[in-house]
Amino acid sequence: MKAAIMGYGTIGSGVAKVLDTNRDIIKARLGEELELKYILDLRDFPGDPHEDCFVKDYKKIAQDEEVQIVVETMGGVEPAFTFVKEMLEAGKSVTTSNKALVADKGAELMEIADKHGVNFVFEAAVGGGIPIIRTLTACLTGDVIEEIDAICNGTTNYMLTNMEQFGSDYNEILAEAQALGYAEKDPTADVEGHDSCRKIAILTSLISGKTVDFNDIPTEGISKISSTDFKYAKEMGCSIKLVARSVKEGDTYSCRVAPFMIKPEQMLYHVAGVMNAVSVKGNMLGESMYYGAGAGALPTASAVVGDMVFLARNTNRQVKIGWEAEKLTLANPLEQRYRFFVRTSALQSNIENEFGNVEYASLDLDNETGFVTAEMSEAEFEERAAALGGIISVIRFY
Amino acid sequence: MKAAIMGYGTIGSGVAKVLDTNRDIIKARLGEELELKYILDLRDFPGDPHEDCFVKDYKKIAQDEEVQIVVETMGGVEPAFTFVKEMLEAGKSVTTSNKALVADKGAELMEIADKHGVNFVFEAAVGGGIPIIRTLTACLTGDVIEEIDAICNGTTNYMLTNMEQFGSDYNEILAEAQALGYAEKDPTADVEGHDSCRKIAILTSLISGKTVDFNDIPTEGISKISSTDFKYAKEMGCSIKLVARSVKEGDTYSCRVAPFMIKPEQMLYHVAGVMNAVSVKGNMLGESMYYGAGAGALPTASAVVGDMVFLARNTNRQVKIGWEAEKLTLANPLEQRYRFFVRTSALQSNIENEFGNVEYASLDLDNETGFVTAEMSEAEFEERAAALGGIISVIRFY
Repeated sequence: MKAAIMGYGTIGSGVAKVLDTNRDIIKARLGEELELKYILDLRDFPGDPHEDCFVKDYKKIAQDEEVQIVVETMGGVEPAFTFVKEMLEAGKSVTTSNKALVADKGAELMEIADKHGVNFVFEAAVGGGIPIIRTLTACLTGDVIEEIDAICNGTTNYMLTNMEQFGSDYNEILAEAQALGYAEKDPTADVEGHDSCRKIAILTSLISGKTVDFNDIPTEGISKISSTDFKYAKEMGCSIKLVARSVKEGDTYSCRVAPFMIKPEQMLYHVAGVMNAVSVKGNMLGESMYYGAGAGALPTASAVVGDMVFLARNTNRQVKIGWEAEKLTLANPLEQRYRFFVRTSALQSNIENEFGNVEYASLDLDNETGFVTAEMSEAEFEERAAALGGIISVIRFY
Repeated sequence: MKAAIMGYGTIGSGVAKVLDTNRDIIKARLGEELELKYILDLRDFPGDPHEDCFVKDYKKIAQDEEVQIVVETMGGVEPAFTFVKEMLEAGKSVTTSNKALVADKGAELMEIADKHGVNFVFEAAVGGGIPIIRTLTACLTGDVIEEIDAICNGTTNYMLTNMEQFGSDYNEILAEAQALGYAEKDPTADVEGHDSCRKIAILTSLISGKTVDFNDIPTEGISKISSTDFKYAKEMGCSIKLVARSVKEGDTYSCRVAPFMIKPEQMLYHVAGVMNAVSVKGNMLGESMYYGAGAGALPTASAVVGDMVFLARNTNRQVKIGWEAEKLTLANPLEQRYRFFVRTSALQSNIENEFGNVEYASLDLDNETGFVTAEMSEAEFEERAAALGGIISVIRFY
């Protein structure tokens, strides 16, 4: 069984390493060798153990009939989309770790795969090494999935965990995470929640069978979270986690990405550092959770190679995932109901005028009051908070 | 697609309920109806919604060519084995929730399935609703599995959680668990660890590809755990959990079922009540964990129905799991290395004579001392503990 890797960066070279390290057990599982024939990259890698495999023109891979499995680990939508499309059209099955590509073009690529009798899979695109995609599409198939709550971005979870542990402020921790390579130079995609948003869009597409446009999901990152917010959280026995949520509402889902106050009774509370976890509630199964390394070269490559084994076991057989191109109209996010933690410079009497009986979270800070509202809709909260004024920060309760 | 259920007890009737409740989504996933044609049970169920399906002779199912999928939820090795064997020989694929059957006859049934071009699967036999079997056999296929640590018995985890929370003693909690239906009248299989032992034997067979005899696994239950042990645990910042372990040693695995002292830094610490979790370490993936309801009619039935969907998607196609009948010789458990928590009536000077520098866990109890040894092998510990004498209890550190 011959394979090719497109993109020899962190994940792509990780895939080569997993194939090398675990060659014997993979061969035993498949009954044949899974052999790397090509690596596509514009750069040169002199001295690399796979030096002979490198090519600079993707058409060389597309035209080689021996290659049955192609790995896409380039990242970004283009040229990844063009390359993947051509591989599928050439009758090769593809696995990708590229969440931007899957969130943007997943249904389209699946349709192309379908037309050409091959498979397009993407276990590594969500949750890194956590096998959440196959869990949803091939395991929890007797259930209606009622809710998904995911800590699915390692950078922000690392940052929040450290802010909590060391009382540091956001900018301090961001600089540290960048120095350690846990955050990128331009951290926007992670810290503003865009990465988590794409991932929950993919998961929601998979459980609904239709396509969720990630632009429809209200998304808030962690860049406004301060050490003071964490002091309040501690006072209330909570942690703050960036959670990507999708909750079934009638025939559709209601989605949001935002920082949440979360209690130790919830398993997600205990997910620390760069680890990720996806909690899935089924109408028969109840709660379940899938936990592991959400990023990193080898854990992500482990998921890609798991996909390669899956593709090798399913050559000449199409495995339907049931994700259609038709757009899913999400439920109105303003109808989501939460309890809201609020910091405001407004007077206590005004707080009670607007929100009635609230729970105060007292830190004895000058010039501000922290409180938790009763459960209400987003729309109602927005209205009352605007009337109250002086809002410093708002964090929903999970 | 026609199916049959053998055994209409808690799980079997749960399977019927899942099929009824989620009929539409299952049909959408399969592209055809998954229809229950027979239910085998010696009892009568007048007024049951599936009243027309009941049969008392399993041969009626075996001989009906329309039936392609059979569910075995009778429990026990016989007559389940005879019935399942005949179904496979009649060309029907089978899923079972019966860990006793799988631990005892798994490889043999898989071989029979193989010979007759059908599939034999058993997702619900370990971890109830947690999809751990398919995770190991179809997801983490790029990894060498280096370690599995499982809280895989809901009864004992419920009991331990309550002993911890309320300071109750073992017998008190057992009576309560029995009254609530969380423990059976004869609780031996759960509380003495036999159930966990069979489950870790199955998981170790799956990751090694050979057959583990559960009789080879040293197994200790929770019946000797007292409220005093939990007081020591609290003093040391630990919880006590019944963990079923399997650790790769060279070409084989080293297994044990026992109560362990476990710290909050471990995710397993946070698995409370009747919930189960399986932690899996891969050589590329690192740590991952799968958490959910390990028992209960609907969660377990959810896994069975997931298997039915899998079988329906794979009629006329054999999915190899790679579990051979050949016996796996486990590593010598006396070579396992742990730190041991020990309570003894021996004098402190004798403790230090035998164990050198130890950490004391002081509860200021008359007539006993608690301490934690340095890491050492089981063999070495046994020798030193015998020399010390006066041992009240021993709990390994995870």
